[in-house]
Amino acid sequence: MAADLLVPETRVLAVASHVVYGYVGNKMASVAMQLLGCDVAALNTVHFSNHTGYRQFKGTRATAEEITALYEGLTQSHLTDFDVMLSGYAPSAAAVEAVGVIGMDLQRNAEKNPGSFFWVLDPVMGDQGRLYVNDDVVPAYKKMIHHADLILPNQFEAEVLSGVRITSLSTLAEAITAIHAIYKVPHVIITSVQISNLSPSSSATAAPPANTLTVIGSTTRSDGSPRLFRVDVPALDCYFSGTGDMFAALTVARLREAVFAADPALRTTKSWVSPDDVPATALPLAQSTVKVLASMHCILEKTMEARNAELQAAVISNGEVLSEEERKKEEHLRESKAAEVRVVRHVQFLREPTVEFPAQEWNKEDLPAQFR
Amino acid sequence: MAADLLVPETRVLAVASHVVYGYVGNKMASVAMQLLGCDVAALNTVHFSNHTGYRQFKGTRATAEEITALYEGLTQSHLTDFDVMLSGYAPSAAAVEAVGVIGMDLQRNAEKNPGSFFWVLDPVMGDQGRLYVNDDVVPAYKKMIHHADLILPNQFEAEVLSGVRITSLSTLAEAITAIHAIYKVPHVIITSVQISNLSPSSSATAAPPANTLTVIGSTTRSDGSPRLFRVDVPALDCYFSGTGDMFAALTVARLREAVFAADPALRTTKSWVSPDDVPATALPLAQSTVKVLASMHCILEKTMEARNAELQAAVISNGEVLSEEERKKEEHLRESKAAEVRVVRHVQFLREPTVEFPAQEWNKEDLPAQFR
Repeated sequence: MAADLLVPETRVLAVASHVVYGYVGNKMASVAMQLLGCDVAALNTVHFSNHTGYRQFKGTRATAEEITALYEGLTQSHLTDFDVMLSGYAPSAAAVEAVGVIGMDLQRNAEKNPGSFFWVLDPVMGDQGRLYVNDDVVPAYKKMIHHADLILPNQFEAEVLSGVRITSLSTLAEAITAIHAIYKVPHVIITSVQISNLSPSSSATAAPPANTLTVIGSTTRSDGSPRLFRVDVPALDCYFSGTGDMFAALTVARLREAVFAADPALRTTKSWVSPDDVPATALPLAQSTVKVLASMHCILEKTMEARNAELQAAVISNGEVLSEEERKKEEHLRESKAAEVRVVRHVQFLREPTVEFPAQEWNKEDLPAQFR
Repeated sequence: MAADLLVPETRVLAVASHVVYGYVGNKMASVAMQLLGCDVAALNTVHFSNHTGYRQFKGTRATAEEITALYEGLTQSHLTDFDVMLSGYAPSAAAVEAVGVIGMDLQRNAEKNPGSFFWVLDPVMGDQGRLYVNDDVVPAYKKMIHHADLILPNQFEAEVLSGVRITSLSTLAEAITAIHAIYKVPHVIITSVQISNLSPSSSATAAPPANTLTVIGSTTRSDGSPRLFRVDVPALDCYFSGTGDMFAALTVARLREAVFAADPALRTTKSWVSPDDVPATALPLAQSTVKVLASMHCILEKTMEARNAELQAAVISNGEVLSEEERKKEEHLRESKAAEVRVVRHVQFLREPTVEFPAQEWNKEDLPAQFR
């Protein structure tokens, strides 16, 4: 890989889960960022054998004290000159708070140099209408999000954070507007919304086909209004774990690249917020999202091909007779393994994806009334 | 990176230490193997903030039970189809034994398919004449090494394992011969010997200049005799941590590549031992070592340049007056940080190093009497 294919030098502190086998959490995020040239420090919040989607795993969780101690280890040896922090899953409210303290400390150190530190926060709380963390994790996130520069909730997490039930394009825009307003967080991306599941809010918007995933992003203007863009990507008929982590990691690398490619003043602007006259689709956040989704689409497509081939291959039975329940369990394990994202063998799609899905402006009709 | 620049698909279980910041242990090994296209499962034996060369760190050690549980997590979900295991540092004799049990289990599973599993064992015990593990770790390694396919001791560890004090080229050859004989381990590489520190054993051998590091390797013949090769590399005037881990990781990738490029029968030969008529310098182990050392030389040279530039840059004093002791400590921390190996930004040297140092045959005079 030629050096000119790498993103600008970026020192990242990545705080998330570690799994021995497979690609989720920091295991996914580290390799994705490293393959694009980032220098990654990985602070692992859990040490599991595999991701929980297998429905069984072994391992241990780091306590808040252990997370804090690791960070103290870094500070006492002056190893905290990070450009970006990416924080993901932490296994308890106390652990989430410990991660928050780290983010705030790094932010304080960078205070005199606006733009020299950027915090990407993935508020991992749940999905598909259901929390998969303890209830007390929600207020822990709500307290720390106003320190983050970019948050990456999924649709459910955006509802939890905004208090807005997302049922249409305009309620989606309302949720993002509320997140900007409540938490003063300048950049938001809602990952993977199925627009076809939402009620049409305007006849002007041709809803994308059912098998489309939409990613919605926004960078605030100085008056607090959202600058909304959307990117539609064909959905693949397969469930993959770790795609949220992959999205977040690639966004770290690509957003920094886009900011370095923009007007040099942006790099020294607090939170990398573009001037008001930059339209939504020209935002570094939009440009980054386009590249990230292009890479992910290619890699997930390759993963699905490999997965299908693996699942079609004959299973060598060891002669055991399995109950229906055991058979289903074995099938689920096999499917989970086959769907592990193939990131390492497809570096070229990380670097130079072969398709791109454009960032689109929103129709005015789909914006909340005050912004039409 | 084009797919054809990657090594053959290789699933590796890497068992070693994790550090949040910097590149040693599994942190180094994972990224080095991943950048060459290996699919790495990383079982971390310690979770430290940074490497111990900084002389201060925080973090926790995995117990033998935790290591065993993580492996059980893999087995219960059928996630153990590894082609190679790379085992490095473990923090206690019990942990070393737990890692040994994992290696033996993987070996047993592969028994019916010779060559389908290969165990690279780095017997991390000490360096420069001194153990840095508990005394009981030595017998733990001595018990398990006869299961490994390749071991990578440094000069001191080779002395501990062979019982031969290495003072000359011929005692070095004797030590390797003893390791083959005592442990029945088919492949041995002794990393970084300073030949100029050894007494000349033969007038025929022109000792390399003082600033040369020599790597010595051997694959046994069927009669148990060693097939010795050596590679001389110019030493760099800088101490780097993690180079042993880097050597081991790159050897995993390059050895598998060399074995796949050899006669196809080798791939299904137990422990990938080449037929007796393959000369030492044509061994996959020798070819691999040449590539590994070429990559490492380029990357360490780039690291030294970057380190020197970093150390020459003005230190911004925060106005504190430091005692002589504090000043020395700060200097050591700064030097340790500056010498972290720059692996991520120099992928091209991993893939296609620009220099090569050839593998050389040994002079007969430098071999133990029975093999001259």
